[in-house]
Amino acid sequence: MSAASGDPQGSQQGLTIRVSIPGLRGVRLTRRILSSSSWFLVFQQVCEWRSPEQLKELLDLELKDEGESESKILQRCREAIRYSVKTSHPRFFNQLFAGLEPYSTVASFIIESIKTSLYTYEVAPVFTLMENAVLRKMIETIGWEEGGDGIFNPGGSMSNMYAMNLARYRYCPDWKEVGLYSAPRLVVFTSQESHYSISKAAALMGLGTKNVYMGAVPFMVNATAGTTVFGAFDPIEEIASVCEKHNLWLHVDACWGGAALMSKKHKHLLKGIHRVHSVSWNPHKMLMASLQCSAFLVRDKTSLLQRCHSARASYLFQQDKFYDVSYDTGDKSVQCSRKPDAFKLWLMWKALGSRELEQRVDRALAMARYLTQEIKKRDGFQLLMEPEFANMCFWYIPPSLRKLPEGPELWTKLHAVAPVIKERMMKTGSMMIGYQTHGDKPNFFRMVVISPQVSRQDLDFVLEEIHHLGQDL
Amino acid sequence: MSAASGDPQGSQQGLTIRVSIPGLRGVRLTRRILSSSSWFLVFQQVCEWRSPEQLKELLDLELKDEGESESKILQRCREAIRYSVKTSHPRFFNQLFAGLEPYSTVASFIIESIKTSLYTYEVAPVFTLMENAVLRKMIETIGWEEGGDGIFNPGGSMSNMYAMNLARYRYCPDWKEVGLYSAPRLVVFTSQESHYSISKAAALMGLGTKNVYMGAVPFMVNATAGTTVFGAFDPIEEIASVCEKHNLWLHVDACWGGAALMSKKHKHLLKGIHRVHSVSWNPHKMLMASLQCSAFLVRDKTSLLQRCHSARASYLFQQDKFYDVSYDTGDKSVQCSRKPDAFKLWLMWKALGSRELEQRVDRALAMARYLTQEIKKRDGFQLLMEPEFANMCFWYIPPSLRKLPEGPELWTKLHAVAPVIKERMMKTGSMMIGYQTHGDKPNFFRMVVISPQVSRQDLDFVLEEIHHLGQDL
Ligand SMILES: Cc1ncc(COP(=O)(O)O)c(C=O)c1O
Ligand SMILES: Cc1ncc(COP(=O)(O)O)c(C=O)c1O
Repeated sequence: MSAASGDPQGSQQGLTIRVSIPGLRGVRLTRRILSSSSWFLVFQQVCEWRSPEQLKELLDLELKDEGESESKILQRCREAIRYSVKTSHPRFFNQLFAGLEPYSTVASFIIESIKTSLYTYEVAPVFTLMENAVLRKMIETIGWEEGGDGIFNPGGSMSNMYAMNLARYRYCPDWKEVGLYSAPRLVVFTSQESHYSISKAAALMGLGTKNVYMGAVPFMVNATAGTTVFGAFDPIEEIASVCEKHNLWLHVDACWGGAALMSKKHKHLLKGIHRVHSVSWNPHKMLMASLQCSAFLVRDKTSLLQRCHSARASYLFQQDKFYDVSYDTGDKSVQCSRKPDAFKLWLMWKALGSRELEQRVDRALAMARYLTQEIKKRDGFQLLMEPEFANMCFWYIPPSLRKLPEGPELWTKLHAVAPVIKERMMKTGSMMIGYQTHGDKPNFFRMVVISPQVSRQDLDFVLEEIHHLGQDL
Repeated sequence: MSAASGDPQGSQQGLTIRVSIPGLRGVRLTRRILSSSSWFLVFQQVCEWRSPEQLKELLDLELKDEGESESKILQRCREAIRYSVKTSHPRFFNQLFAGLEPYSTVASFIIESIKTSLYTYEVAPVFTLMENAVLRKMIETIGWEEGGDGIFNPGGSMSNMYAMNLARYRYCPDWKEVGLYSAPRLVVFTSQESHYSISKAAALMGLGTKNVYMGAVPFMVNATAGTTVFGAFDPIEEIASVCEKHNLWLHVDACWGGAALMSKKHKHLLKGIHRVHSVSWNPHKMLMASLQCSAFLVRDKTSLLQRCHSARASYLFQQDKFYDVSYDTGDKSVQCSRKPDAFKLWLMWKALGSRELEQRVDRALAMARYLTQEIKKRDGFQLLMEPEFANMCFWYIPPSLRKLPEGPELWTKLHAVAPVIKERMMKTGSMMIGYQTHGDKPNFFRMVVISPQVSRQDLDFVLEEIHHLGQDL
């Protein structure tokens, strides 16, 4: 694939990728993609909403016996981009990821181009060492002075499951072979606010979701550093003291809040993390690494990670290799093929340095504080609670409801407001923010500020737009 | 990032990526990457071997407080590419993936650029529908006439684990909540040749690796269509009859052999697959989709996949949305964020049509047969067995050993041959082929032919090169 033509004007407008792979014998393609996708410019929509039925009409999804021409395929790429949500748009606040980090994106392209899977040093020498270097740096950042072990996973959910598996394995290594049939009922302690991946892991691992909150023999405590909804931090120091007393594995799910470790100003939120057994940390969230980039880190130095997960496949992990096979890290994973996600963090860290990453975190949290102040100032906006991190949870109360006394009538009417504003927001495509209930609370907005591309103007816009879209309700 | 300069000559040499993202406010980078990586040209090495120690010296891996200049980072990218294994080189035969499929690569770049995660329709409308379309097409290809369900996973290991979890869930849904403590000892039947992911899944799921081969209450049978080492096919039709009789869940691990379903000529290898409960199929192997691209498919139409894995997170899966929430597929997964890997298959399938995919499979298998003939013809080469698929397992017996009678002395000496040839091959970088033992067999080569870039000349070269590297042993 090579550029059909130069178009410097066009490439000023957005993201242009030109790929030329003439070495592919017999395959010569000309393709120019993405050139029309200048989705970062604020006058563009965050999304161009189409219902599933409409979108099926617009995209001819069916796969056929005959292939299509290159120009047709180029058209398909354009359509895929057009109707996809622009998660890097400065007004996308719907998820715990946002924004495009250029260095990390470059790393992703390289990874895609050289098509590497991590299991043995021989197949992935560079990325094996880079993963090593990044894990070491993250471990240093956490403060495990004696070092530790770790692995990058496809997502924090997987990292949390790894923690549960290691904790169980340490408690009784025999269960790896014999299963749980001889085992006492095991329970995991965690808070109501912890991420649902803890329950999913308990179900998959044969522990049972009902054994997550209360029970018989505890083998692990999960503390959350930055909860998904409220951005709350469990008190690690206190929990660590209890766990040490009872010899319990303490895992910290810092998928979201781990970024605070980069900041001298904010790392107190995770005070005590140097005492825990394992940590999940997703650099693809606040540090803005490309999706996915998720690390699982363990303080253990007795190769627990390998012993717990190993299957010793002879076709990959031969012991008579001519190099030090401790660099064949694949048996630490429950996956077989595994993407070199660590490179996405390595390259951007190398380019920006810890200092710039620190500033990024500080800036996001300063922006979050600005938004908090604005929410407090404005009529009709009400915070659920004072935010600890970058999650702002708030209600918008339309003028028609502002006179109602607190009580069931208000709650019922307020509950209907956020879904309608969300629908209108999606259909105009002006921005994206999540909403949800929590316990018996009526629907509220959860807005998350991550990206350094976001300006105060963007935040002001969001609050004005919510009012604009909801004032008649 | 935008092209520093046009270089049509350079781009004729290999893979060039130019990215311009000027919309990123405050960030303006100029980067030209990969232009020097013309790794497809056969005169280039498959790898430029460096030991871990040497490579650590060459790459300055440490992450520091201060960032680095753009030219430094460009240099780092070049180094990362240079010392990475060129898995798309026509002489890379080391893994069950190889080659770069251009359309799938374009899809990967788009995915990386628009940074999408699949859980709800609102965040990933296009890719949700595309995943749907691809799953439907794969299900049709398998031959489940009533349809089914499915999901793309980060790797076939995960897909196999999904099968085990669904089989267990169907056997007794209560265990999702209460765990295995009340359960009888469950066992999984599979063959010795099945992939190690079956054992890894049994360990993680609390079933115990010892319960994979023999035992008490069977709840699942795993058949392998295309085993990892020998490329052998379990007789699905016969196994299905037994499973139907005993109401056992039958899963087919077709991660490797699934590609044969595309071919009228070869699909008999999976005869009976329309009768099974679930299938794992990795298009990133023989169909050459970008890594990773792995589907799990289930014949069930009662939303077992969702019921088995759901955690119903209220922040993602609100039920009062303004669109049909059955398009929010995220709760079918045990992951939270999940990459839209289906697009990598959708785009190439759309571009090439089923017909071209069929030819690709036929061509790979014809090449494999050619190689088999060549191995049989040449002195000193000996097949372990007649190949059923694209895996050729063979010994190279150096002249010094050819006169030895079969017996312990020959086996011991032969066992040492493949590791030395592999070391020499890596150090010259001329090609990459795996070797391994199996049971008490001495080390042998396992060579896999996948890519349409591979020519007869490449195959001839491999056999000559093995002789060249090993004739003095
Ligand atoms: C606290 C927390 N832990 C874990 C996860 C799961 O991360 P992933 O989506 O990478 O699986 C999330 C996702 O939002 C999270 O908020
Ligand atoms: C038969 C079989 N099943 C499953 C897998 C695992 O696939 P993945 O590496 O995508 O996890 C493999 C990998 O080679 C395989 O050969």
